[in-house]
Amino acid sequence: MPQSSVICINSQKDVGTRARQHPVRPSVCAGSLEESISSSLQLPVSTDPHFAAAIGHVLNHPGSLVRPRLVLQIGHAFGLDRVAGQNLATALEYFHTASLIFDDLPCMDDAEERRGAPCVHRAHGEHQAILSALALINRAYVLLLKTIATSSLDTRLEAIDYVDQCLGVEGLLNGQSLDLSYAKLPHTPETTQRIAKGKTVSLIRLTLVLPAILGNASQREIQLLERISLFWGLAYQMVDDLKDILQSAEQTGKTGARDALLDRPNIAMVLGVPETQKRLQRMIAIGDHTLKSALRNRPSLGFLEKMRDTLQGELDLVVGSPRARKMEGAL
Amino acid sequence: MPQSSVICINSQKDVGTRARQHPVRPSVCAGSLEESISSSLQLPVSTDPHFAAAIGHVLNHPGSLVRPRLVLQIGHAFGLDRVAGQNLATALEYFHTASLIFDDLPCMDDAEERRGAPCVHRAHGEHQAILSALALINRAYVLLLKTIATSSLDTRLEAIDYVDQCLGVEGLLNGQSLDLSYAKLPHTPETTQRIAKGKTVSLIRLTLVLPAILGNASQREIQLLERISLFWGLAYQMVDDLKDILQSAEQTGKTGARDALLDRPNIAMVLGVPETQKRLQRMIAIGDHTLKSALRNRPSLGFLEKMRDTLQGELDLVVGSPRARKMEGAL
Repeated sequence: MPQSSVICINSQKDVGTRARQHPVRPSVCAGSLEESISSSLQLPVSTDPHFAAAIGHVLNHPGSLVRPRLVLQIGHAFGLDRVAGQNLATALEYFHTASLIFDDLPCMDDAEERRGAPCVHRAHGEHQAILSALALINRAYVLLLKTIATSSLDTRLEAIDYVDQCLGVEGLLNGQSLDLSYAKLPHTPETTQRIAKGKTVSLIRLTLVLPAILGNASQREIQLLERISLFWGLAYQMVDDLKDILQSAEQTGKTGARDALLDRPNIAMVLGVPETQKRLQRMIAIGDHTLKSALRNRPSLGFLEKMRDTLQGELDLVVGSPRARKMEGAL
Repeated sequence: MPQSSVICINSQKDVGTRARQHPVRPSVCAGSLEESISSSLQLPVSTDPHFAAAIGHVLNHPGSLVRPRLVLQIGHAFGLDRVAGQNLATALEYFHTASLIFDDLPCMDDAEERRGAPCVHRAHGEHQAILSALALINRAYVLLLKTIATSSLDTRLEAIDYVDQCLGVEGLLNGQSLDLSYAKLPHTPETTQRIAKGKTVSLIRLTLVLPAILGNASQREIQLLERISLFWGLAYQMVDDLKDILQSAEQTGKTGARDALLDRPNIAMVLGVPETQKRLQRMIAIGDHTLKSALRNRPSLGFLEKMRDTLQGELDLVVGSPRARKMEGAL
């Protein structure tokens, strides 16, 4: 890949010596998505070493990168150039990682491990975890702004509104709040669905729809991707909820039936396992129908079929678990 | 003021029903700066009531609004239209308020009160404090993006870089980290100055320089405002540090000599009171010189003289305190 095809951020400047005639432009570095994610938050030498260590801890333990890879693929399908796609993918991964750091804090999920390592607040203190997450959020917005900078005014405003919807008070943040308030809320299918829409669907929407908006997708295409995000997002959450009830700790890597123990939202606990399985199969079926329409419009979205198959595979695994079969036999 | 002169954010939309042919534009509401600040983070009806209560707590306890008023004045001096100035002022106030919410958390300053009320984490829980601060940050970026949306590409990129410098890993976040790590860092004038540059100067830079950038100020004018921000920011921090040592709790509203007690950065503890007073007077003198140059370029910046006089007044008050006079007598 030529050196010029990936943008890195370079903004080290001193007060009073800012060379305004040469406003800092994204500088150039070579590399893959992994390199972009690990190098887009470079620290100046004056950084507090404790802060640098916490940020290093975060960047050295990347996730599965499922979301940013999808951003690249959607971007590619809609003709977004590679640099823009990679910056957008990095921004979304930073937003996602920051949300996990906050979720893991003692005042939220009080988690011990994340991505095969101690949570950053356990390794570097809560204050450094919060500052690292804010550093990711700040850089994510900067990357996003630089990515959309050359788009048309209409596209820029649409992208900004979309990010606001997904990440702000009507998206991820409200989902997280509802999730934490669950014990005080009515335990209904509506509540668990609102939480799943806020927490799970919001980031899938950003992943599938934002690169399409920037690639000037048609209104119809955006609508189809919106629907796919909703059905698959809800379906993924149902699979996760079923897993919590049906699978053993060894299979999920989590303590079994943890949601019941901690009074956490779980639609399978509210609707029952069989009804949840039915709903889930229905979500996948409507998703299939929507995906077909999307593929008719744009066959280059074919890679989404793999995501759909993964979802069905996860469901088959849950439904096929010994406990699920036992429950089915008892019905 | 005509109804159309203030922008409110309106982004309540449902998944799958987004009317893409009419991308959401900032909608219109009348009002003052105070109204803009209290109404630019409107919540959808689906908001978790606990989250809404925490955000309401924050918005119902505004600060002195010194910073956003300065943003409006600088914006006016550089010909920025009123809508843009007000949105920018609101965005900066949101960033500032969010930084205070984080600072007050138990893992940071563990404060009890803020703006005459219990801190939001004490009234609504740490998780809601964090989510509220994130809601402010998200909305601040959205307001900022909408404000710069119609600027030229060069101005937009310059504004984005500037925000990154001031709020990111080389600005406010690093200052906060150094501040919290102070007990483990060398107690030198350099350390305290780096902390003051990160924590205090960064937000003054954003306040004085960002509206000038958006108003297409010349390179020379930007440089002068950068210098004023630096000298005044450092001077303000020195006044605060002197106050901590010299004034009683009744005068400052804080426990006297709290910095010494908690091993917090205080330049007057590192340099001594007389040397700090000398440096402070020097900072004000260089600031005066720079302000004169700025006023020659643009007399409409005359309102900055009031800010300068407030600073000198604060210094006179500290120097004139009984304890300062006693220390001077002892020298």
